[in-house]
Amino acid sequence: MGRWEPGAGGRLREAALNLYLERGFDQTMVNDIAERAGVTARTFFRYFGDKREVLFDAAAEVEEKSLAALEGAPATASALDLVAAALEAVADTIGHDRELARMRQTVIMANADLRERELIKLAQMTAALADGLRRRGIGDAEADLAAETGSAVYRVAFRRWVDAAGDLDLREAIDQSFAQLRTLTAAD
Amino acid sequence: MGRWEPGAGGRLREAALNLYLERGFDQTMVNDIAERAGVTARTFFRYFGDKREVLFDAAAEVEEKSLAALEGAPATASALDLVAAALEAVADTIGHDRELARMRQTVIMANADLRERELIKLAQMTAALADGLRRRGIGDAEADLAAETGSAVYRVAFRRWVDAAGDLDLREAIDQSFAQLRTLTAAD
Repeated sequence: MGRWEPGAGGRLREAALNLYLERGFDQTMVNDIAERAGVTARTFFRYFGDKREVLFDAAAEVEEKSLAALEGAPATASALDLVAAALEAVADTIGHDRELARMRQTVIMANADLRERELIKLAQMTAALADGLRRRGIGDAEADLAAETGSAVYRVAFRRWVDAAGDLDLREAIDQSFAQLRTLTAAD
Repeated sequence: MGRWEPGAGGRLREAALNLYLERGFDQTMVNDIAERAGVTARTFFRYFGDKREVLFDAAAEVEEKSLAALEGAPATASALDLVAAALEAVADTIGHDRELARMRQTVIMANADLRERELIKLAQMTAALADGLRRRGIGDAEADLAAETGSAVYRVAFRRWVDAAGDLDLREAIDQSFAQLRTLTAAD
């Protein structure tokens, strides 16, 4: 699969990420992005609400697919199995392009407002996961802890995946973090 | 132990929290807080840098004490034992007054900027915890996961403590969350 979605949307995303890396997010204007992508600002706004949305527009799809995976998991699944199913769906949605994830991560880590935005998105995702677990009949306290624990596993796995020098799959990184969590809690 | 520290600092904190609850954080001015506490705005600024600091000034003490507990834990402690020692120190620092924690939490949850600030403080605390684990010789990946897992346990325990109808100690809530985490990971 190619890195950028075809057409103007993909060109705009590529142009935006490159400009954010070259000049910084605050110094890049929508007009600069449109110009680099060879389209008008009007076209930019057909794809993205603002320049921040280029970085965060995957969140809705990620949430939708992960909740669908959680809902579709077998009736025998434990709370942590359900969380793992949700995280695997996240990996299937964003895991195909590590270079894109790296560029995005570099842009976000360089800007305090974007780091805040990312923390908020993660907190919202965690709350949605806990709600999904409750809908699957998991008790309130267990759902809350399983969702927060899944969020912890995901944060760690994501950083490892983005930082890994060699080949690493996001799904594999998530599995490794879950295995390490079991070792941690068993050793204690 | 009384709820408010003695003197003008305690009166200012009490006045501020009550006003934030009555009028909202954004609608409360430093002059209002000083007036309610019976002091001048100049006195307010001897205790707090701004009206937000009334809510977040415990963070430095919490971080310092929890890192000291982590550093002072026995050499045989596992990564999760070290995290538990750090969280117990957090409980000892803020756990003596649930009503104060509830008021603060209500104010924060009602305001998007304050919720963001709280998420940032938690993320900084998690990063400091991971660094503390590394200084105790815990490997990089394990330190990262143990710190994030501890943060998950803490978030859940804190919410349970604040929301509990009956008696509940913050330290007890943390112990319960750790026990539940072990059950969750063992069941999987």
